[in-house]
Amino acid sequence: MKKCRAVESNDVSLKITHCGVCYADVVWTRNKLGDSEYPLVPGHEIAGIVKEVGSNVHHFKVGDHVGVGTYVNSCRDCEYCGMDMDVYCSKGSVRTFNSVDVDGTITKGGFIFFPFHRIRVASQRFLETPSPTLKRYCFRIPNDYPLAAAAPLLCAGITVYSPMMRHKMNQPGKSLGVIGLGGLGHLAVKFGKAFGLSVTVFSTSITKKDEALNKLGADKFVISSDEEQMKAMVNSLNFVIDTASGDHPFDPYMKLLKTGGTLVLVGVPSEVKLNPISLIMGMKSISGSATGGTKERQEMLDFCAAQKIYPEIEIIPIEYINEALERLIKGDVKYRFVINIENSLK
Amino acid sequence: MKKCRAVESNDVSLKITHCGVCYADVVWTRNKLGDSEYPLVPGHEIAGIVKEVGSNVHHFKVGDHVGVGTYVNSCRDCEYCGMDMDVYCSKGSVRTFNSVDVDGTITKGGFIFFPFHRIRVASQRFLETPSPTLKRYCFRIPNDYPLAAAAPLLCAGITVYSPMMRHKMNQPGKSLGVIGLGGLGHLAVKFGKAFGLSVTVFSTSITKKDEALNKLGADKFVISSDEEQMKAMVNSLNFVIDTASGDHPFDPYMKLLKTGGTLVLVGVPSEVKLNPISLIMGMKSISGSATGGTKERQEMLDFCAAQKIYPEIEIIPIEYINEALERLIKGDVKYRFVINIENSLK
Repeated sequence: MKKCRAVESNDVSLKITHCGVCYADVVWTRNKLGDSEYPLVPGHEIAGIVKEVGSNVHHFKVGDHVGVGTYVNSCRDCEYCGMDMDVYCSKGSVRTFNSVDVDGTITKGGFIFFPFHRIRVASQRFLETPSPTLKRYCFRIPNDYPLAAAAPLLCAGITVYSPMMRHKMNQPGKSLGVIGLGGLGHLAVKFGKAFGLSVTVFSTSITKKDEALNKLGADKFVISSDEEQMKAMVNSLNFVIDTASGDHPFDPYMKLLKTGGTLVLVGVPSEVKLNPISLIMGMKSISGSATGGTKERQEMLDFCAAQKIYPEIEIIPIEYINEALERLIKGDVKYRFVINIENSLK
Repeated sequence: MKKCRAVESNDVSLKITHCGVCYADVVWTRNKLGDSEYPLVPGHEIAGIVKEVGSNVHHFKVGDHVGVGTYVNSCRDCEYCGMDMDVYCSKGSVRTFNSVDVDGTITKGGFIFFPFHRIRVASQRFLETPSPTLKRYCFRIPNDYPLAAAAPLLCAGITVYSPMMRHKMNQPGKSLGVIGLGGLGHLAVKFGKAFGLSVTVFSTSITKKDEALNKLGADKFVISSDEEQMKAMVNSLNFVIDTASGDHPFDPYMKLLKTGGTLVLVGVPSEVKLNPISLIMGMKSISGSATGGTKERQEMLDFCAAQKIYPEIEIIPIEYINEALERLIKGDVKYRFVINIENSLK
């Protein structure tokens, strides 16, 4: 296997210690989109320790704890890169794995292990950037934050944090619905409670009720197939985060939104189908969101450290990954697998 | 036929001179929603002259030119009434026709003619209201604005103006797409140009091209079934107003939106169906909107007068209404029928 490209002047090279397991790892290892380039190394929830920095890199030094998320480069020149939303780069961001890097090689993600457990990521912003706190694609993990817990924040965390911030759901007193209680959903609940929201979890499975209420701190738990429970929630929510990738109806959830409310899709069902009246009567919206930007990713890490928000994780060795992917597909994980890369297969 | 209820202290009674013909008049005269109460008098784009005011009404006097839109009362007490968005009143606004009024009678709309060509509308805000310029449900039509032209603004106009304002599409330089060129669409084009936007009209019919560009002032005209023309518009629009009530695909239009863009539905197709990726890749939204609020309705009328924006209308006598409704169903009107109520059937 080819190693990632050499460290250039704006690059940071890190030793990966941990990597979260995201559904994207299922999608690309199994070539579900038809664009997988093998050998493929998945993993885009990366935490590790800086091993080498390029000559232009002054804000990271060897030994720093850092994270890398879903992309490792972008044009840094377009409208969206200009607003720190590089994920929507007009020229396409370089994704952390299975993507063509600037030198033409295919990027390899965080499941890469000894002796190759390093990843290179462009860290430097251009000089004209006003804020010295922004570091693109490579993010500082506060020293007292466990690296294993930080990993899932780099994709699952930012994927729910970004739309919550964009839709002003960090304002205490608002009401949040969370559809699905997996890697993304459980973090939406934790963020919601940290923001001072009233949080209702919607699930198809009663087995998640106790944990939702008593471990994660949700205020309410609703079985989505129970019409009475759903009816009691009509016109009560400012915002719904829909993390479910299985097919499900949308109209019942749109009814639960207050006037002007938004349902944001972060899961990927096969289609979105709804009655237009669900949108029109109450100026409601259904919106999408893909991970998030660079600036807000750092803000989220700092927020989690300050608020002591930690993902619920099951740490596994790399040898367990095939079983973990099978369990992930079945939703059998509370709530995110994190591979201990550093201590695997030495 | 029973006349509308007596003028009470907060009411304004007006002599209707004109009434626009909206697709809602087709819907309820033909009982398409199954809730029509006959005898039914449609019409909710009403312009006229004040004939009588209640004892508490000080901001209108006999002889004033006024308009009435899609509702004539609401609770004036809920969250939405409190923000001048009475159309979304928690207890349900009293619609201008086929709706139960506060005294239990069924409201009659603007197609009511001599000797009954009056309508009563609650005008007064409660005393605690801070702004004396707001007058609820009854709107001042500037003196130099033709009453016939004002009528379509009270529904068609506000229905496109409201979402444009809410989504900040009054900022010059932004790009607007308008799907469908009927009563609503042609006003969206006129508002768009008045706001300084680049406006593209999407239509299934080439016959509308000349008027769209040369009469209404649109910048571009695209045949929506032409893949090449559609492709040339990818990622170019900040906002799309979709006025089409016929079934049509949504994914092709979502592709035309820039990152963060919104398509607002103001037409009512039978369903909304799209690929979730159309929303997720580019944090795009599809949203709905139903007419608009009280404050913005007055603002719109003042804006049209100041900017000399006039709907394109075909004035008809009431005797022509059945033929007009048939032509409206076929889209055979440029672009709004307005009934001359005052001079009909005398």
